[in-house]
Amino acid sequence: MTATQISTVLNSQALLDHWQGHRRLTRRVIEVFPEDKLFSFEVGSMRPFSEMVKEFLKMTEPIVHGVATAEWKEFGSSDLDSVRTKTELLRLWDETTEKLNAIWPTIPAHRFAEVDKAFGKWEASGIHTILYCIDNEIHHRGQGYVYLRALGIDPPPFWER
Amino acid sequence: MTATQISTVLNSQALLDHWQGHRRLTRRVIEVFPEDKLFSFEVGSMRPFSEMVKEFLKMTEPIVHGVATAEWKEFGSSDLDSVRTKTELLRLWDETTEKLNAIWPTIPAHRFAEVDKAFGKWEASGIHTILYCIDNEIHHRGQGYVYLRALGIDPPPFWER
Repeated sequence: MTATQISTVLNSQALLDHWQGHRRLTRRVIEVFPEDKLFSFEVGSMRPFSEMVKEFLKMTEPIVHGVATAEWKEFGSSDLDSVRTKTELLRLWDETTEKLNAIWPTIPAHRFAEVDKAFGKWEASGIHTILYCIDNEIHHRGQGYVYLRALGIDPPPFWER
Repeated sequence: MTATQISTVLNSQALLDHWQGHRRLTRRVIEVFPEDKLFSFEVGSMRPFSEMVKEFLKMTEPIVHGVATAEWKEFGSSDLDSVRTKTELLRLWDETTEKLNAIWPTIPAHRFAEVDKAFGKWEASGIHTILYCIDNEIHHRGQGYVYLRALGIDPPPFWER
């Protein structure tokens, strides 16, 4: 067994596919929320699920762009704050899906391991900044599942991507 | 840029460290729950957080053992069902931490990509079965955060591992 064999557990395309699978599930969670609850319902003084989704949108494309280019844009677009409909949220979601697919193959291989300061603030390797973004989506989407259950609505199965 | 460079975004040790970082956070979430609420509190007719933790314990070691050896044990130990104290849950958590560290380096490199039927049921590559296990922990732990907020308790910061 060589060092190269030992070190490779996940390739770039597989990670993108994994993430887009999670993003398809998040999209279904957005869809299943009644529109008014999406923007208003919360448990334990937490944010409505729409605000968590806006956070995902504020991070995803800028992080992949930053890892690809070492150029860190502002964290999130303030345009998102005014979004008040499910249709607009889903439109932005799909736009980010396309951007993610377009930027991903341009990430230079060395940038996954290279340590950088994401948004000039958070020091981590490219892969860890990307994993943080994916994990953050899984974490908050899990909270959206509790909101749906509290509303008496069945969320989509976690294993369906 | 070679194909090998393109394909490697995460090595085996980095993935173990990433998972153990998540597991340290989950341990802190268990610790911060008041013992009675850990075993009883729920939102929206979901399970108490202790039941989610038992699910993590039922999956983690058997999955890593299965990916390492292609031998699939029974899903989870029924001994877990009788656990009723936080101390015992944390003891089992730490035991699994040690087992994970011990088994992980024995995973043959080819097993991450090899497709197998986890527990004789779920067909996926080794890496995807492992990622499912990690993602499932993040997903349900996020639900534990909602329980804590609903109880008026501050959960540990998500980014601290």
